[in-house]
Amino acid sequence: MATPVTEGAVGTADLKTVRELAQQLRVDSVRSSTSAGSGHPTSSMSAADVLAVLVARHLRYDWDNPEDPANDHLIFSKGHASPLLYSVYKAVGVVTDHELMNGYRRFGERLQGHPTPILPWVDVATGSLGQGLPDAVGVAIAGKYLDKSPYRVWVLCGDSEMAEGSIWEALDKAAYYQLTNLVAIVDVNRLGQRGPTEIGWDLDRYAKRVEAFGARAVVIDGHDIDAIDAALADAEDASRPTVILARTRKGEGFSEIADKENWHGKPLPADMAARAIVELGGERDLRVRGPVPGPELPRPVPVQRPRITLPTFELGTKVASRKAYGQALAAIGARTDVVALDAEVSNSTHAEDFGKVHPERFFEMFIAEQQLVATAVGLSVRGYVAFASTFAAFFSRAYDFIRMAAISQVDIRLAGSHAGVEIGADGPSQMALEDLAMLRAVHGSTVLYPSDATSTAKLVEVMADLSGISYLRTTRGAYPVLYGPDEPFAPGGSKVLRRTDADTVTLIGAGVTLHESLAAADTLAAEGVSARVIDLYSVKPIDAATVLEAARATGGRIVITEDHYPEGGLASAVLAALDDSGLPLSVRHLAVRSLPGSGTPVELLDAAGISAPHIVDAARDLLR
Amino acid sequence: MATPVTEGAVGTADLKTVRELAQQLRVDSVRSSTSAGSGHPTSSMSAADVLAVLVARHLRYDWDNPEDPANDHLIFSKGHASPLLYSVYKAVGVVTDHELMNGYRRFGERLQGHPTPILPWVDVATGSLGQGLPDAVGVAIAGKYLDKSPYRVWVLCGDSEMAEGSIWEALDKAAYYQLTNLVAIVDVNRLGQRGPTEIGWDLDRYAKRVEAFGARAVVIDGHDIDAIDAALADAEDASRPTVILARTRKGEGFSEIADKENWHGKPLPADMAARAIVELGGERDLRVRGPVPGPELPRPVPVQRPRITLPTFELGTKVASRKAYGQALAAIGARTDVVALDAEVSNSTHAEDFGKVHPERFFEMFIAEQQLVATAVGLSVRGYVAFASTFAAFFSRAYDFIRMAAISQVDIRLAGSHAGVEIGADGPSQMALEDLAMLRAVHGSTVLYPSDATSTAKLVEVMADLSGISYLRTTRGAYPVLYGPDEPFAPGGSKVLRRTDADTVTLIGAGVTLHESLAAADTLAAEGVSARVIDLYSVKPIDAATVLEAARATGGRIVITEDHYPEGGLASAVLAALDDSGLPLSVRHLAVRSLPGSGTPVELLDAAGISAPHIVDAARDLLR
Repeated sequence: MATPVTEGAVGTADLKTVRELAQQLRVDSVRSSTSAGSGHPTSSMSAADVLAVLVARHLRYDWDNPEDPANDHLIFSKGHASPLLYSVYKAVGVVTDHELMNGYRRFGERLQGHPTPILPWVDVATGSLGQGLPDAVGVAIAGKYLDKSPYRVWVLCGDSEMAEGSIWEALDKAAYYQLTNLVAIVDVNRLGQRGPTEIGWDLDRYAKRVEAFGARAVVIDGHDIDAIDAALADAEDASRPTVILARTRKGEGFSEIADKENWHGKPLPADMAARAIVELGGERDLRVRGPVPGPELPRPVPVQRPRITLPTFELGTKVASRKAYGQALAAIGARTDVVALDAEVSNSTHAEDFGKVHPERFFEMFIAEQQLVATAVGLSVRGYVAFASTFAAFFSRAYDFIRMAAISQVDIRLAGSHAGVEIGADGPSQMALEDLAMLRAVHGSTVLYPSDATSTAKLVEVMADLSGISYLRTTRGAYPVLYGPDEPFAPGGSKVLRRTDADTVTLIGAGVTLHESLAAADTLAAEGVSARVIDLYSVKPIDAATVLEAARATGGRIVITEDHYPEGGLASAVLAALDDSGLPLSVRHLAVRSLPGSGTPVELLDAAGISAPHIVDAARDLLR
Repeated sequence: MATPVTEGAVGTADLKTVRELAQQLRVDSVRSSTSAGSGHPTSSMSAADVLAVLVARHLRYDWDNPEDPANDHLIFSKGHASPLLYSVYKAVGVVTDHELMNGYRRFGERLQGHPTPILPWVDVATGSLGQGLPDAVGVAIAGKYLDKSPYRVWVLCGDSEMAEGSIWEALDKAAYYQLTNLVAIVDVNRLGQRGPTEIGWDLDRYAKRVEAFGARAVVIDGHDIDAIDAALADAEDASRPTVILARTRKGEGFSEIADKENWHGKPLPADMAARAIVELGGERDLRVRGPVPGPELPRPVPVQRPRITLPTFELGTKVASRKAYGQALAAIGARTDVVALDAEVSNSTHAEDFGKVHPERFFEMFIAEQQLVATAVGLSVRGYVAFASTFAAFFSRAYDFIRMAAISQVDIRLAGSHAGVEIGADGPSQMALEDLAMLRAVHGSTVLYPSDATSTAKLVEVMADLSGISYLRTTRGAYPVLYGPDEPFAPGGSKVLRRTDADTVTLIGAGVTLHESLAAADTLAAEGVSARVIDLYSVKPIDAATVLEAARATGGRIVITEDHYPEGGLASAVLAALDDSGLPLSVRHLAVRSLPGSGTPVELLDAAGISAPHIVDAARDLLR
């Protein structure tokens, strides 16, 4: 029944010890949350038995070397059960009781309300429900297909989060990619925050759903240590991903609150905590570790980073930046750590160019954008350089995952094609018009919006080494190549494409509106008006110095044009850069201000007031 | 087998006519997309038989009176099959062949690339996959529980979109709410955009998933008119929501492309189109209508709008704005068209206050934020005033739904609690720090962020009559009531809380940072510095006149403080309002610039640099 212990294992506790450990985890969950005055003890107590068995006998993890690539992964999808996780850390000896009692949920401490990778044993931040399992799918894909290492990915889910569609995207992909290295344990304690869940303890209904999505469902009593141990052992030999549905009671172990409503997210008052600890058999100080991955287990092969030869493009030829994206991605794929993902539109985003030359590192996520981003997050946990692409508009489907990825402090790269009204006939549902705002507001993000093929290719190469969330916005249509192959591009940069000492107005654009701005500058030049033109390809961080210099040089007269709604995009970035300039500003902000429909790109750019003639008019108006 | 026709029905076509109609729909799908030079004829041809049977014999719809509340609803979740939908409109006689051939996907025309409610027969915009069915669940909830009208909601889904988690959120809720009035038809043509779907023609796998989620699955040959007719008739008497899984062939009817890859989203070239039309039996000009809802069918009872008595709050007492939200919502619930939805956190958002007094108009969506917003959209289709609440951070889960709701031009109200670092110990996963940016960037949105209980209550009442997407950001902690019960609040307004003729600096805040700004002004006043303080409760639209006047009066010296990441929020709105002022600006922008952790609200506000002492420092710095 016990899991085979590999060479180098610390040892495997017997089930009697595991029972004691489970009670200790409950006691410590109560103690830590009561000491903090907040937290979720009851949601921890329901899963304590499962965690005790897992950690003591099945999780193959070297607690002294969390960086060992052969370690199993443990992801708390129900991140609010952090008292349980931190009590586990105490039990394995990596967190002291003092830290547990004085650090939990306190300012400046690492034992935060919900787990984040500030802790070396945490892969991803959780706390927005329904994300841990999708992230785990990404880690498991890395394990099976890239690392080719036998580590397992264990996930603790809550039953309430089974209502999130993302859980089913994850199980669908787990089955599609035959992730036998993935084991999810659902803590079915039947009580959500404000009352009973939809499905309660009808575990067969969960099982039917799980099986229908192609995973193996195992129903157990989540407080029966023997049953848990058997189920976990069994999961290690599964031919499908496994979902263990554990029937549990919220607050198990303390009769005053067990299986009672209105105890979600509430620490026990001191007197109740004292009674709970007594009922749980008092405080313990067990130190228990389970197996560790032995040295004989295969570790991933080192990454190969050959010299990259980027595609080059002839000046003036018309190339869509999305096409340059695909070609550049294929080129940097010479690095064996680069992985591409797409949501069933790779022939539009041109990620298929990568898939054709590196099929072993291309993963189709089908139309499941949440899982698309989650897979990138999971791959990043294992050090892969993941690029995820879809229509720019559809990253809005995964905004919560992007937001959480920033808290996870992973490095992921998103490429959104078909931005703005420029896409034409397909209409507004396919037009990204809020993506710049959305991505700029992500903590620590980099937002890039190149205007030509050369800059796109260069920035794709740069993105591979960027940390945090980086986003590349590409354009559907083909526009002239503006830069030669030796021109450098970097986050925080910009290019001044027109510049004289006599400039009286600055035109700022990016993507399609840069081309419109250049055309406008030509028209103005013919009228004797000298306009400075800035390619603001790095929307975040912004090249504030160049913008400021231009603003100074042109008397604060700036026309900013963007194929985006007015809020949060290019102009917002420019104004923020100038907010303390002390310059009197006269800005004309051309953006998409009404709901667009179908049409040709030219018609739609013009109707939105962001085409060259409108830029010319705005500049004239400023100079009147 | 035929559906019972009610009084006033136009008549029901026989199946021979239906077969002809199906071929006409195919021909017209080919013709319209070829004439437009873009569109999705093959995705239309696969579903033509299903639509012909539905429209001619089952859909109870008065085409001359789309506003009849007893009409059935027809939602194209696979919005890219718009040629089919518009060909149906031609067949029932509400769109001319001329419009179909000259308006489709053209600039300024209503037959857009993907359907939008610019057309009177379209309920919601589709085109972002996996949204039509969730929206339909909202309409069906309205029909069953609020309108109490026997109309049915028919949805055409694509098979590719079954990979979206939102589909499963929708079916879960359809079963939970026993929506027997909901019939989804999945056009299983096995081919996505770039190749085969995950599941192909394994209809049993779809059926297992559908049944596991509690709906009734019916598997049919989607090109067998008799089978379709039987299945649709059967669906009308179902005791569960029905999902008809129709095995179809993409491009059915034209042998050169039927069931072939690489024909997604491509119009046929003229010569192929001509051959297709020949193979389909040539052009037809059938006019076919199905049954209409008879006058004997119950219509919804008129809305009651009694006088609302809002809760009042004593000046200076501390009340959390989320609490005021719940109380105000309960109060305006006296209007019988007000409906509240929540995602299993109603005891935190305080939407439970509404649920307690109006349980028949409160719908629990559990932890499924996409369905939360989609249900609001569906309710809005039927004229209900839906308020949807959850933690502000978790609306990011539904951003694509919010974006599409704006294209649907529905009126929905979102209330997000627990904004910013102010929430304290729970940590960053629960902190909305990008919600203002996200919501401001939605077309036509209104973004409100009240600082006290009075303004919150007033704004909740105002929101009930707002059009478009409106968003209310509420705060976790309790802060002093600032306004008396007679103070008016409206979108586009602001309040100047400190003002003298000697003001030298302006402090702008909203929510918790307004209270910090007031404290800072008191400190500055003690030093002899007179600061103007603005409560910018309407972030969008912004009260530009008041901001401009303050900027002028205080020499362009402004301290803007927000519990939000720096991008796209309060400061972004203020700077946009001043971008053409010609004023030399000296703005200090205090916002959350590093990743927060756990702590007390006071600790976290201070660590983020957005507490009163930091505001004081910034003001001093500006005046140095």
